[in-house]
Amino acid sequence: MSVEKVKVYKDLMGENEKWAAETRKLLSGKNVRMINVIGSPGSGKTSLLERMVRDLGDKCAFAVLEGDVETTADADRIAALNITASQLLTGGACHLEAKLVYYALRDLPLDDLDMVVVENVGNLVCPAEFDIGEHAKIAVLSVTEGEDKPSKYPLLFHESSAVVLTKTDLLPYLDFDKAECLRHIEKVNPNIPVFEISSKTGDGVENWIEWVMSERHAGLVRNPN
Amino acid sequence: MSVEKVKVYKDLMGENEKWAAETRKLLSGKNVRMINVIGSPGSGKTSLLERMVRDLGDKCAFAVLEGDVETTADADRIAALNITASQLLTGGACHLEAKLVYYALRDLPLDDLDMVVVENVGNLVCPAEFDIGEHAKIAVLSVTEGEDKPSKYPLLFHESSAVVLTKTDLLPYLDFDKAECLRHIEKVNPNIPVFEISSKTGDGVENWIEWVMSERHAGLVRNPN
Repeated sequence: MSVEKVKVYKDLMGENEKWAAETRKLLSGKNVRMINVIGSPGSGKTSLLERMVRDLGDKCAFAVLEGDVETTADADRIAALNITASQLLTGGACHLEAKLVYYALRDLPLDDLDMVVVENVGNLVCPAEFDIGEHAKIAVLSVTEGEDKPSKYPLLFHESSAVVLTKTDLLPYLDFDKAECLRHIEKVNPNIPVFEISSKTGDGVENWIEWVMSERHAGLVRNPN
Repeated sequence: MSVEKVKVYKDLMGENEKWAAETRKLLSGKNVRMINVIGSPGSGKTSLLERMVRDLGDKCAFAVLEGDVETTADADRIAALNITASQLLTGGACHLEAKLVYYALRDLPLDDLDMVVVENVGNLVCPAEFDIGEHAKIAVLSVTEGEDKPSKYPLLFHESSAVVLTKTDLLPYLDFDKAECLRHIEKVNPNIPVFEISSKTGDGVENWIEWVMSERHAGLVRNPN
């Protein structure tokens, strides 16, 4: 990392953190909690959100903010399930920044909501560096990505409040060593809960939904590390 | 994207492009060609490289540069196959920059090489924005990531000279519509060749190796769009 780059990111962070603080103030005033879902492209983030709409939608009033570089495909998928969904397009950038999230939140009916779920741009690196004012980050990792990703991309797993291990229906067809993956996760974040789920079959989704509900009631602990 | 950010990226690019030009001069002088392999975390880039070492190693003298945020796991995997492999650690950054690649190349035995294969940091966004002096970018997309990634992350697919569609052995267990995926690719890059391969079974690897060899002989066309 060049010297210029470190300086630049510090400047950006200052601006970003002002907006993140504004967002937390806005959400606190409305008693709304926000989670920031982060994972690789195609790791199953949107499918997880579709499951959450189906299984959580009647217990908790929530809206979805979909972050992408291009297209409204993901917001369209969520909106098709009759839940409020907005698409945040970064126009080339590899992560969501707090200012864009803040303005999207201002347009949501926050008085009627318990929670906002943000799906960040598909990327294991940059989104973890940018606070968007969330109360908890959730790391999504699919079993097709291999066991070692938590060690290779440690910041996200260190900063997150839970890991959702997706696509477990594919385990019979993969050389995936789950115990090894859990060791990689434990190395960067010893006490983080890990939820193994298949959005396709529904396996494990109930445990995940229960955790979200109980954490929501407890107010969600931000960045517990 | 904020105004500050656009300005910042322009500044960085200027410095980066000087090093990319130095790299191209260095490689031209030695008649070495370099390809830059880019894809999501866990898309099968390192497995593809392992296959290339096995099937291309006796036809073409090449070395591997492995880009990662953390760990030397990937360079260790390649070096275990008795090929020269260096690990480039970005220390948190989400892509390789030209200066780091240049210094790694200077330490390789370029007089004895035909080609250098670089595996970039697992990320569909940022690596596509940074020229590292390569002669061709190769986009790696696994069938587990879904059909729509070329439309959601268009820059990489637009800039690349070929797409390698990996993990085809998993197709029987996925709801993956290959024709739809090819339409997404075609939309951003109408004439790009697509190679469907399974590094696990070896299916399709031969066609890919043939293309790499014939393109190497032709000198590799950089950024054909």
